[in-house]
Amino acid sequence: MSDEKLLKPGERIDDLMREGFRLIQNPDLFCFGIDAVLLSDFAKASHKSRVLDLCTGNGVIPILMLARKKGSSYKAIEIQEASADIARRSAKLNEVSDRLEIIQGDIKDVPNLVGRDAFDVVTCNPPYMLNGGGLVNPDDAKALARHEIMCNFDDVARAASRALKVGGKFYFIHRPRRLSEIFVSMKKYNLEPKRIRMVHSFYNKPAVMILVEASKTGGVELIIEPPLVIYKEPGVYTDEVISIY
Amino acid sequence: MSDEKLLKPGERIDDLMREGFRLIQNPDLFCFGIDAVLLSDFAKASHKSRVLDLCTGNGVIPILMLARKKGSSYKAIEIQEASADIARRSAKLNEVSDRLEIIQGDIKDVPNLVGRDAFDVVTCNPPYMLNGGGLVNPDDAKALARHEIMCNFDDVARAASRALKVGGKFYFIHRPRRLSEIFVSMKKYNLEPKRIRMVHSFYNKPAVMILVEASKTGGVELIIEPPLVIYKEPGVYTDEVISIY
Repeated sequence: MSDEKLLKPGERIDDLMREGFRLIQNPDLFCFGIDAVLLSDFAKASHKSRVLDLCTGNGVIPILMLARKKGSSYKAIEIQEASADIARRSAKLNEVSDRLEIIQGDIKDVPNLVGRDAFDVVTCNPPYMLNGGGLVNPDDAKALARHEIMCNFDDVARAASRALKVGGKFYFIHRPRRLSEIFVSMKKYNLEPKRIRMVHSFYNKPAVMILVEASKTGGVELIIEPPLVIYKEPGVYTDEVISIY
Repeated sequence: MSDEKLLKPGERIDDLMREGFRLIQNPDLFCFGIDAVLLSDFAKASHKSRVLDLCTGNGVIPILMLARKKGSSYKAIEIQEASADIARRSAKLNEVSDRLEIIQGDIKDVPNLVGRDAFDVVTCNPPYMLNGGGLVNPDDAKALARHEIMCNFDDVARAASRALKVGGKFYFIHRPRRLSEIFVSMKKYNLEPKRIRMVHSFYNKPAVMILVEASKTGGVELIIEPPLVIYKEPGVYTDEVISIY
């Protein structure tokens, strides 16, 4: 079957520029951005690790991590059937369907969907905007991916904690302005932050994203890593961001 | 009375290099470091603000803030009588005793010592090391200033919250590795972090200190400011740190 046969109307295949990996995307749903690339670089997973991705969308995080030769087997949960369908076809496109299982479901049902205490690593690029209430159309797939309509960070932290083995690692990217809630939810579900990296657009600008590694149980020692800066001048990536891409 | 008459054996007068302000220090107790300088720069206080400093030691924070023309009237609490005595004499040395009252007491008694809901701004450079238990000599004044023997961060956050007016600001400096506990204590006492700045020794090294502005009550919007870097090369301060000094 030619690759194009895996596509539905409105979709396209993007080259991930790494090990020949590609991703099916539908611009009407949600396309991945730099946050997915940074998270797949930040997250660690050994060649033996069982990895679960929450709110996987089109499967970009596990596919980028497979392209980076991280992890062993992957499961990924997505609540929207249209996005889960794209993710499944991307796994097929990259011939990794045997290592990446896409599960359509709600992360609040994690124990039923994938079991408890079962994963070495959980990753998530969650919806990061507060539920806009009446302002957001709940039929809008892009809105669901960005706004906390179907789940909030507390749900994500709970799901990660239930799915992880003791000592397992949870990697996520979020927005700094909600860091306080994020810490409170992590504490609630016994996820101890171990490593944080602030992402700044420029050296002299506030952080725009935050990368977090947390451990299920463990001591309270936290390292704030050197800042990750995206641009050295307008439109020009820093050497570090170029090396990450 | 000559300035030297304000000194006791083992003490010295250090010039703060700003507006002629000076500080009495006893190297056997505790001398201020860059953390006090950075906090006095980071903290905001209008010319009308009533300010309280917790764990004031030799009074370095209010004296540095007065030297920076911040705030109106100051109270400062110190549990060790020897340090409180030095702070009182430093206030006299700088002729600000009418604006800076040093109170010897325990911050757990804040309502009795200085009242509730009474301050626009609270500052604190707290002891930042966990209680070392048997390893720390509780008669050692330096140990008390560095280790959480007489109070821990939870006590500090509680005292700040009780002393602050609604909407008042709490400024403190701490160590990144305990950020998780810090967030949990702030939430517990209704202190919402609004502005955080990571302090790195070098651009490519982990953060060594963290500056925090929290508001008593208020929304959850938090800004992570650009990183503050101390050295541009070994032994050479960055331009920003030079401008702060």
